[in-house]
Order: sequence, then C-alpha cells, then structure tokens
Amino acid sequence: MNDTQVTLVGCVATRIDYKDTVNGPSARFRFAVTPRYFDKRAEAWTDGTTSFYTVWARRSLAVNLAGSVSVGEPLVVHGRLRVREDPPDGEGKRWISAEIDATAIGHDLNRGTAAFRRVVKTDTPLMATQKASVV
Amino acid sequence: MNDTQVTLVGCVATRIDYKDTVNGPSARFRFAVTPRYFDKRAEAWTDGTTSFYTVWARRSLAVNLAGSVSVGEPLVVHGRLRVREDPPDGEGKRWISAEIDATAIGHDLNRGTAAFRRVVKTDTPLMATQKASVV
Amino acid sequence: MNDTQVTLVGCVATRIDYKDTVNGPSARFRFAVTPRYFDKRAEAWTDGTTSFYTVWARRSLAVNLAGSVSVGEPLVVHGRLRVREDPPDGEGKRWISAEIDATAIGHDLNRGTAAFRRVVKTDTPLMATQKASVV
Amino acid sequence: MNDTQVTLVGCVATRIDYKDTVNGPSARFRFAVTPRYFDKRAEAWTDGTTSFYTVWARRSLAVNLAGSVSVGEPLVVHGRLRVREDPPDGEGKRWISAEIDATAIGHDLNRGTAAFRRVVKTDTPLMATQKASVV
Repeated sequence: MNDTQVTLVGCVATRIDYKDTVNGPSARFRFAVTPRYFDKRAEAWTDGTTSFYTVWARRSLAVNLAGSVSVGEPLVVHGRLRVREDPPDGEGKRWISAEIDATAIGHDLNRGTAAFRRVVKTDTPLMATQKASVV
Repeated sequence: MNDTQVTLVGCVATRIDYKDTVNGPSARFRFAVTPRYFDKRAEAWTDGTTSFYTVWARRSLAVNLAGSVSVGEPLVVHGRLRVREDPPDGEGKRWISAEIDATAIGHDLNRGTAAFRRVVKTDTPLMATQKASVV
Repeated sequence: MNDTQVTLVGCVATRIDYKDTVNGPSARFRFAVTPRYFDKRAEAWTDGTTSFYTVWARRSLAVNLAGSVSVGEPLVVHGRLRVREDPPDGEGKRWISAEIDATAIGHDLNRGTAAFRRVVKTDTPLMATQKASVV
Repeated sequence: MNDTQVTLVGCVATRIDYKDTVNGPSARFRFAVTPRYFDKRAEAWTDGTTSFYTVWARRSLAVNLAGSVSVGEPLVVHGRLRVREDPPDGEGKRWISAEIDATAIGHDLNRGTAAFRRVVKTDTPLMATQKASVV
C-alpha cells in the first residue's frame, strides 16, 4: 500500500554487481536516465540533465540480468521507488539516494534487437554448474 | 499534457503485425497481462483475470520488435494508454478498446536471458536490403 | 504481482453511484481523460481524443468521494487498471471495458482550490447517523 | 522523451513555500511517502521506511496549492521525477536529492472530505488583490 511504482528508460552505467546471498541471488547496478526535450528556439531535440538510480534485482531476475546485460546497454526498468535518507551533514543539508526494487527489466528495443531464450523455472535451487550455464 | 502513461508486464498473444507505411515502419500486437494474487485461504499465489491490450510501435521500435519478438514471449511494455470508444450498441452498452502507443519495449528478464545487439541509427532511410539484415 | 498501476488526470463524467454492500461502502463513476497536444502548425494547444474509464472506490474512499465530488469536477485518480473483455460479437470484433480500482483520488488543484477536512477512522462500523454527517 | 512519471501518495511534511518569480508563481514543499506492508508473522499492516521528496508546482497549481494545503495533509502527487546529484564528497559517496515537477496534485480522499471551488482561468496576470481573493 502506498508503494511508488516507476518506470525508467535509460542506460546501464556500471557493470552488474551479482551476489549469492542467504536470501537467494541478488544483483544491483547504477542506471542513467536522460530526458530529451524539443528545444523550440534551436528547433532540435536536446538532452536534459541525467538522473542516476541504484537498481536492485532478486532471484531469477538477478540471475538472468547478470547473464544478459552489460555496461552501456539501454534498458526499460520497472519497479518500486524508495529514497533512502542519510542523517544531515554538518551544514544541515539532507542527503538522499534513489533506489529501485525492480519487478521487471528488459532491453529497450528502440535501440537494437534481442534474442530471447526462456529459462525454465526449477523449484530446487540451481547448483553451481547449472547456474554457470544459465549465466 | 494529461497523457496517461502505463507499464504492462505480460505476454505476447499474437504475432507481430509489421507494416511499412508512408509515415514509416509500424507494428502492432495483442498483449496479455495476468495479475497474480496471494490467496490467503489457499496460502498460494493464483492468477487473476487476464487483461488484453493492443500495443502499437513506430519507427525503429517497430523494426526491432518485428526482428526480436515472437508469440508467447514475456515483455515489459511502456507507453501511452488510450481507450477508443465505439458508439453504443442497440442495448446501450458502451464498447471500448484499450490501446498502448509504446515508447519502450523489452523482454522480461524474470523469465529468461536476452542477447542484445545495438542497431546503429542512420539518418537516411534504410534500403530494403539493409532492413532485411537488421531484422 | 504484474498489477498495472495507472494515474489519470481528467474530469468526472457521471454522478457518483454510491452503494452500501455486504463488503462495505462502494462507489463508481465514469471518468473522462482528454490529452492535450501542442499543434506545431497551428502553434497552439489542442485537445486529443477523450478516453473514458469506469472508476471504482471502496471503504472510506467511497464514502468521502460521495461526500466530496460532483459531475464535471477535475480529479487525479490513481489505481489498478484492468480491461474486462466480453465475448466477441457476430462480426468477431472484441469488446472491452477499461476499469480502475482506485487506491487514491483527489481534486486536481490545477483547476481550483479545495478545503480539506480529515475524517477520523473508527474501527467500529459507522452508524447511519454518523455516516450521514460524514457524507 | 524518456521522462520519468511517478505518482506519490503521502503527507505534506513542511509548509508550502510560495514565491512569485519572473516566470510566474512557483511553490515547493517536502513530501513524505510511507509504504505499508502486511507482516505475515504479526498478521498486521506495518509501516515501511519513509521516503522524502521535494515537490515543485508552477503557475495556477502553485497558487491553488498555497491556498489549499497545510502541513500534515494527505495528498496524491503526480509529476516528473528527477534525481539531482551533487559532486561526491571526500569519501567518494554520491549524494542525491529526489524532486518532482508536479503536473497534478489533490487531497487524498481516503483520509477525509474536500470542498472544491473552481478558479476561472484568466489570460491576464492576477493582480495582488485578485490573487488574495483566490488564495
């Protein structure tokens, strides 16, 4: 309830940082979103200021992300937004980091083609050798 | 202004219907979205009722879609929603069709892996032979 | 999971249809969303085609809606979108209705002012006299 | 293009800071969004961590906001999200602030009732006395 859903269209800014945790696979990366505006005076599209987000993925989304996505690739990221706030510094300024718990991620087909291969879900945890082949 | 943006996570229900028009490449397909609920009594996730949408893509998104996506594949679709209304029938019931003008589409990496290949934008229109190699 | 959240900015097209049901208060109304585009040739903003939705509210949202909103008033509506499909007719055409299960609704302050009065939540059901005073 | 639209449901955390600028009326405030989760072990709804945003409004939305909204009131806020990044500090940590350019704002009718009064648009700028009567 009161979840803030958001969809980002942008580019991967860092490599995928993948980890096996006690709660299952987890992955994160930094994501850059640059809006584009039509500049009426210049009569041309120009870039706005880039916003950066930390995107988190879990379970099969984390595994497939690590096996599919590289730095610089364009993605569509859909998930829940939260803004983590650290305590104010000496000057009383608030510092904040914007994070997305991704519910779905895909390559943006505006920019290229993608060959998709379905991964069959298994109820038993993947063994290391199987996981290697998935990734 | 007052645009209704929406993000759909679901599966392709029909083949991609691709056309070259005087306004450039255009593609459309039917898309099925099935929400899943946690049934407290059964203590299990169950399917809700499926919603169907008609998704439209233009330009390079249409070309890459036709070259990348098949029936049954899972997608994330982001775009503008509009609801076209036909005149009421004899019984006075309103009939409506829900359509998405897609701004970005990608394979849902929850369900599998994707090998992405960037397509370089050209300012000159693609010739038929070039387009064939892109698709 | 796979819920489709959407936010509509538009105007109330019908009076609020309020009912007390065995599952608690329920209200619905038709809602009209008209996008506006900047027409480059005319150098002016013009109306696009209007989309119509059926909006549903439950519990306290339904009660306060019935006590606050009239036909023609501008609203922001946030909720889950679903598209109900009826069986194809004789010509094989699909007929669809677009519905929103509202999670939050408010008057659009672009168009006017609003005097807000908080309603205190009670765990016991409202009696008819209390409800009348709320509405 | 690539705009990130978002809808927030939460409470006003600071008073509305209203200013007349050379570009017209402008207002801003801090906004708190607290998601609620169903805690299966406790079998009860509990609060998640609160996210804070800076919300900006312009023109008539700014004027009506200043004339309608007080600290602590519940709102629905719809707009464009951007994340402003300040240069890394000495420890190399990135500091970010999350801001919303609001396109529509309304009182959340889950929590109370609202009496709406339409403000007629004028093409000529409001004079101080007129504005006072609007606010």
